[in-house]
Amino acid sequence: MTLTRTAATFPPPVMEARRWLEGVTFTADRPLINVSQAAPVDPPPAPLRQAMADVALGNDEAHLYGPVLGLPELRAELAAQTAAHYAGTINADQVCITSGCNQAFAAAIAMLCSEADEVILPTPWYFNHKMWLDMSGVTSVPLATGPDLLPDPAAAAALITPRTRAIALVTPNNPGGVEYPAELVQAFFDLARDKSIALILDETYRDFDSRSGPPHALFQDPDWQDTLIHLYSFSKAYRLTGHRVGAMISSAARLAEVEKFLDTVAICPAQLGQHAALWGMQNLKQWLAGERDEILARRAAITANMHKLEPLGWKLLGLGGYFAYMQHPFAESSADLAPRLVRDAGILTLPGTMFCPESDPSGASQLRIAFANLDADGIGELFDRLAAVSQA
Amino acid sequence: MTLTRTAATFPPPVMEARRWLEGVTFTADRPLINVSQAAPVDPPPAPLRQAMADVALGNDEAHLYGPVLGLPELRAELAAQTAAHYAGTINADQVCITSGCNQAFAAAIAMLCSEADEVILPTPWYFNHKMWLDMSGVTSVPLATGPDLLPDPAAAAALITPRTRAIALVTPNNPGGVEYPAELVQAFFDLARDKSIALILDETYRDFDSRSGPPHALFQDPDWQDTLIHLYSFSKAYRLTGHRVGAMISSAARLAEVEKFLDTVAICPAQLGQHAALWGMQNLKQWLAGERDEILARRAAITANMHKLEPLGWKLLGLGGYFAYMQHPFAESSADLAPRLVRDAGILTLPGTMFCPESDPSGASQLRIAFANLDADGIGELFDRLAAVSQA
Repeated sequence: MTLTRTAATFPPPVMEARRWLEGVTFTADRPLINVSQAAPVDPPPAPLRQAMADVALGNDEAHLYGPVLGLPELRAELAAQTAAHYAGTINADQVCITSGCNQAFAAAIAMLCSEADEVILPTPWYFNHKMWLDMSGVTSVPLATGPDLLPDPAAAAALITPRTRAIALVTPNNPGGVEYPAELVQAFFDLARDKSIALILDETYRDFDSRSGPPHALFQDPDWQDTLIHLYSFSKAYRLTGHRVGAMISSAARLAEVEKFLDTVAICPAQLGQHAALWGMQNLKQWLAGERDEILARRAAITANMHKLEPLGWKLLGLGGYFAYMQHPFAESSADLAPRLVRDAGILTLPGTMFCPESDPSGASQLRIAFANLDADGIGELFDRLAAVSQA
Repeated sequence: MTLTRTAATFPPPVMEARRWLEGVTFTADRPLINVSQAAPVDPPPAPLRQAMADVALGNDEAHLYGPVLGLPELRAELAAQTAAHYAGTINADQVCITSGCNQAFAAAIAMLCSEADEVILPTPWYFNHKMWLDMSGVTSVPLATGPDLLPDPAAAAALITPRTRAIALVTPNNPGGVEYPAELVQAFFDLARDKSIALILDETYRDFDSRSGPPHALFQDPDWQDTLIHLYSFSKAYRLTGHRVGAMISSAARLAEVEKFLDTVAICPAQLGQHAALWGMQNLKQWLAGERDEILARRAAITANMHKLEPLGWKLLGLGGYFAYMQHPFAESSADLAPRLVRDAGILTLPGTMFCPESDPSGASQLRIAFANLDADGIGELFDRLAAVSQA
């Protein structure tokens, strides 16, 4: 008997990691440092919370079913702001809202693929992408990256078969942190177009990119919508993780297909979250710029603290978005190290093994640190603890 | 080339029906009567809206990711109230919260099935069930019902093959309205257990069942969780359609599998909706009883108005929950009649063809009327218009 859809994949890594906390005691002078999940620790700013309360009290429509593809005002706003951000052209009917960015990826795969199709994913990969492909009967074709964690278009080209439907990139990368250079993204776009497959570009962390100006020029191509499927999340920018709001940008024809999936799996995105995202886009530009500055300061704190770990054999492989991707010096696999760090150092991280195919040994020596959860002092403390455990 | 997952199914019927409204003008003295979608027309009661506003303003956690399987307090409350309602035994770890009941069905299928498996659905079926099975590569095996719209366990038994993974029932039925007798539900449970398949029981409309007491005794079976997958929705009871909150009740082992699917397609249910559902369960029992009385009064208004249509050749096939399922007297297919009713009578209904396999001609003579959207006066007006158009 074949495995069922869910039996074909692994349990959610974040939930598995949470279970490592069970039975471990953390003290007031050494509390848990949780750098496992990429999620703002604080709630959204007070004016946004007030706006949500106002909608709950005053807007009857916000309690009822909305359109499957999302609030028209939010689609239009995201189209306009994304077009401005990338100096390109995007219409409102090329935008749909989803219940989080994971759902946007799931919808894209349902729209592109069928049983036994293939999708190319650079490794280390984002585990929820791998899980959805497993559950869709789609083969994840790993594209190994080098020490700089950047995927090679020529290597990707060699992996394309008649069953390949898409290449999926994440930039700034999860888990690797690296910001893909504009030319690299362009090269993958050209390859996808040339081979008549789709390029899925998950830019969940784009609001925290350290570069100024458009991170790539794809939306400036007059025919971008034939090849590109861009994914976005409102969760990080406006601290709306609990409200589940993401988006997909592609051709209107593709979104008509996506509508079938979203109707069946969600009916519509939660309305209050959509109103919150709209209010955020319209009112929090300045605030978001400050958030980005803060994340970039935390990123700088990672670099500044590396001197504590480098002499002990640690290496920083990638840094950006919300993540530092590190090589550790221990003989044990990261799969054992990560739960041990909870017990011995009060630190919750995710092991590289959660981001790599079983056939790839590199994950065993790697850890993902969602540094955005910590301020500069917290990052200093994290590194002190990692140094102490490395010397023990 | 095989069809992609979404290409293997049809567009969302509710969205398609909405497009029939385009270009049609409705006047103040004859406004649109929309009985197409089963959804409360009014927002939730003011105290519930206030409770949501309070959570948005005062509860930091409600803005952040929650557990994949839902708020523990809501799981516990639903376990307790469902156990009381059905006079059975249900633990909190046998309950998970989903982003609406459609998602609960999708998760159940992902947990039970793989490519080319089969699920038995009585016809007329709920189209989102059919759509999800199509998109999952699972064959929907239609189980024809008789004039009373009740499925026959013996006929179902004859359809079971080695690939059958489940029988999915909806009671009170969508679209048929009929409340399945307790003995019938029991017979399907016994059949499923006997054949080692699952019984999926979608009870979205259970709060408006006209019968008092438990509608079936399945939760009283000490081993119910081995066979039963119960689905529920908070949308109708507390008017939370825009907030996407549903639930699944089954064994904890099954929910651990379901967790993989939900993590990947949603991460967690929207938090404010969950808090609203919890507040509703804890505070709106009396109010909900009044809602049920109102729906039952509307149901009675359907019966009382049938005398206007019966002489014109209409027949009431099923009535209950939110729905009246009607046989119309026109020579044309309901697929043509439904859009014509928008233009000629200002009435939006869904045609029976949307609920039946193409091979089944019965849908052509049927219409689904979501009567719960109308008060008694509105129902009188609906029937007057249907009578007028039948005599034209």
